[in-house]
Amino acid sequence: MSDSAVRVGVVGAGTVGSGVVELLLQRTELLARRSGVQVELGAVADLDRQRAKATGATDDQIVDDFRKLIQDPSIEIIVELVGGTRIAETIVREALGAGKAVVTANKALLAEKGRPLFDLARQKNVPIAFEAAVAGGIPIILALREGLIVNNYTSLLGIVNGTCNYILSEMVGKGADYGECLKEAQRLGYAEADPTFDVEGYDSGHKLALMSALAFESWVDFSKLHCEGISRITATDIKYFKEMGYTVRLLAVARPDEKNKRIFLSVHPGLLPLDHPLANVQGSMNAVALYGDVVMESMYYGRGAGKFPTASAVVSDIIAVARALRGGAPEPTWTPSDTPAYELADMADYRTEYYIRFPVPDQPGVLAKLADALGKRNVSIATVDQDKAGADGITSIVLETHEAREGDVMDAIEDMRKMFPGPDPIVIRLED
Amino acid sequence: MSDSAVRVGVVGAGTVGSGVVELLLQRTELLARRSGVQVELGAVADLDRQRAKATGATDDQIVDDFRKLIQDPSIEIIVELVGGTRIAETIVREALGAGKAVVTANKALLAEKGRPLFDLARQKNVPIAFEAAVAGGIPIILALREGLIVNNYTSLLGIVNGTCNYILSEMVGKGADYGECLKEAQRLGYAEADPTFDVEGYDSGHKLALMSALAFESWVDFSKLHCEGISRITATDIKYFKEMGYTVRLLAVARPDEKNKRIFLSVHPGLLPLDHPLANVQGSMNAVALYGDVVMESMYYGRGAGKFPTASAVVSDIIAVARALRGGAPEPTWTPSDTPAYELADMADYRTEYYIRFPVPDQPGVLAKLADALGKRNVSIATVDQDKAGADGITSIVLETHEAREGDVMDAIEDMRKMFPGPDPIVIRLED
Repeated sequence: MSDSAVRVGVVGAGTVGSGVVELLLQRTELLARRSGVQVELGAVADLDRQRAKATGATDDQIVDDFRKLIQDPSIEIIVELVGGTRIAETIVREALGAGKAVVTANKALLAEKGRPLFDLARQKNVPIAFEAAVAGGIPIILALREGLIVNNYTSLLGIVNGTCNYILSEMVGKGADYGECLKEAQRLGYAEADPTFDVEGYDSGHKLALMSALAFESWVDFSKLHCEGISRITATDIKYFKEMGYTVRLLAVARPDEKNKRIFLSVHPGLLPLDHPLANVQGSMNAVALYGDVVMESMYYGRGAGKFPTASAVVSDIIAVARALRGGAPEPTWTPSDTPAYELADMADYRTEYYIRFPVPDQPGVLAKLADALGKRNVSIATVDQDKAGADGITSIVLETHEAREGDVMDAIEDMRKMFPGPDPIVIRLED
Repeated sequence: MSDSAVRVGVVGAGTVGSGVVELLLQRTELLARRSGVQVELGAVADLDRQRAKATGATDDQIVDDFRKLIQDPSIEIIVELVGGTRIAETIVREALGAGKAVVTANKALLAEKGRPLFDLARQKNVPIAFEAAVAGGIPIILALREGLIVNNYTSLLGIVNGTCNYILSEMVGKGADYGECLKEAQRLGYAEADPTFDVEGYDSGHKLALMSALAFESWVDFSKLHCEGISRITATDIKYFKEMGYTVRLLAVARPDEKNKRIFLSVHPGLLPLDHPLANVQGSMNAVALYGDVVMESMYYGRGAGKFPTASAVVSDIIAVARALRGGAPEPTWTPSDTPAYELADMADYRTEYYIRFPVPDQPGVLAKLADALGKRNVSIATVDQDKAGADGITSIVLETHEAREGDVMDAIEDMRKMFPGPDPIVIRLED
């Protein structure tokens, strides 16, 4: 066992990268004292030398080409923080190919193109650590891989996109419309100019794919994941949710169906009872509820993004990898399995209660026809509500169903739409 | 690096011990697959052979004397689960003395007598792992030691006693009195026949001492910790808390005062705004909010007790130690420091807002005199409330102060008591 320092190469001196470099430079002594290993910055690679310099790195710690880090035999860990899935993939592949451990915060890369990278890592016997890729500063990967290692997970429910959580919290808090809250989120920097990636659930989907690969030992093809965003929810829906005693959040949901060895993986807006541990997660905060057959319920809450919260997770990975490198401890082998424990389930077989708001003409007999359509598909109604029609003669019938099969609900809605064509109905799942 | 199995000796086949043995026996393959190391039960030691047998251990895996485990050279990890601080201390000391790693759930032992044991462990270069000693199944020690390793913690706020949280949740939920809710807790098995240890805050104090030893690198003398219980809170107080927009929880609080290199460590009932991450922790659940200067706020929630949630934490420790043993990885050295980073602060210097309910005779001029007493001690009043007097002519004046120094508040109350002797006033801190 060698006592020499573990040298780290950081690729990308952007927001998170600069945070990581600053922490490595400023907390060398603290990290060594706490971890028992010496970690030091080898160099930071960035095309923008000024940006790299602003981190506090000295001139001889700055390079303009990531390959100089990979070719440097003294560097044992490559930290990929450039983002995106093109150059990042090259960096990670070349780093692994050179036998170096990789630490990354890149959820898109791992969820979309990670499978061969994990295979390469296994072949080279080096780890890919990605705590920062899921829920920023929350040590959820650590909890999944180590803290709860003896558990078979029975379900996972996460709020893992701060943009959506900010928008929905505001909509609920102010009774405001989606568009208005999106604009406010954009003004405050919580949402991008083109918010599609966040608000349609793809970012949450990346994180769900990674968490479920660990928790359920099943790698999934990200493109097959059900992703449903928040952009169709209106202030009218929010008003009904409140009346019904719920709040709404964009949820990343993993529910294994043990009997049929399949798993439901879905990102969708979900209704939560107000006393649910996730119901009070406000603003841009993240949280993940994990249910294990030994530990029962658990929940982890914190900042899901931002320079330093994310850098906190990156540094914890660097230290864990450095400890393993110096001690020669086996890295946990809990990486994507070759023999998935579960098949991806069809959402048509999902079962929960459903909120349905159906815009209809304000005419006699409409409710009876809708109720009949649901009944014919074995969907039983728990509550019903109808407001006065607006000037356009259109009203909304709002239903809460008992537990039903999603395919039946969707078939009934299709039947109803044939009877009453018009604006699209809204369907939101209850999650409990 | 050897591939041989790490053999574990479990001392005590009680509630948690039997859970640990069952998991080790039933999940051998799962644990090996996920961790990369083979762990197997060497033997379980219990005076009650039938109890040991009920875990599923075979006859040759049962011994009646813990020393047989310690003397067995094939056993590398001793798991102490007998509880108490007498025989448990002997077990841990002898195990460490024999160079064996120790895993324990024993908060009382470590908080009260842990210092020399940690010193012995360091001398023998073996770890004492104690995830299960704090907040049961919640991997809070892992988060503190590894997940957030780069952080300087700025404060810690924990709900770490399920008995108190159950009683206070019930009092708030039903507006009921302490005695009634305690009885219900006893009936349900959440409280002991003699509940003193839990309701007066000592159990929370043990956990606070352990968390702060890690988070603030300061070992504290447990007997000097401020411990204040919940037994004096009444249904009347609960009513006022609600009116003021707060809930109440028994909190383990660590607040470092960087400037003066001292730390406030206290267990006391605290008022929380309803949107605080800990305000919604109901029933016997536990949660710990950790604030770090890099990660900012984070919170961990789960079951703090019970056979399997606690066993989940014990097994995660066993695996972490086994990985370190086989890999030779350095255990994190983040054990109690010889040079404490902080001195224990005097609670007289604590600063927060205070709720004060002062029982007084219903006479003219009383409020003016109380207000004057507070003003003279530099305690400024934020809100005041007074109900009609009961048949006994006694009313309560309820005050919420602005931020004040605790010593000044207590001095003012002493002055007030000289003017109006009678039932003791209630003082509750606001925590935010």
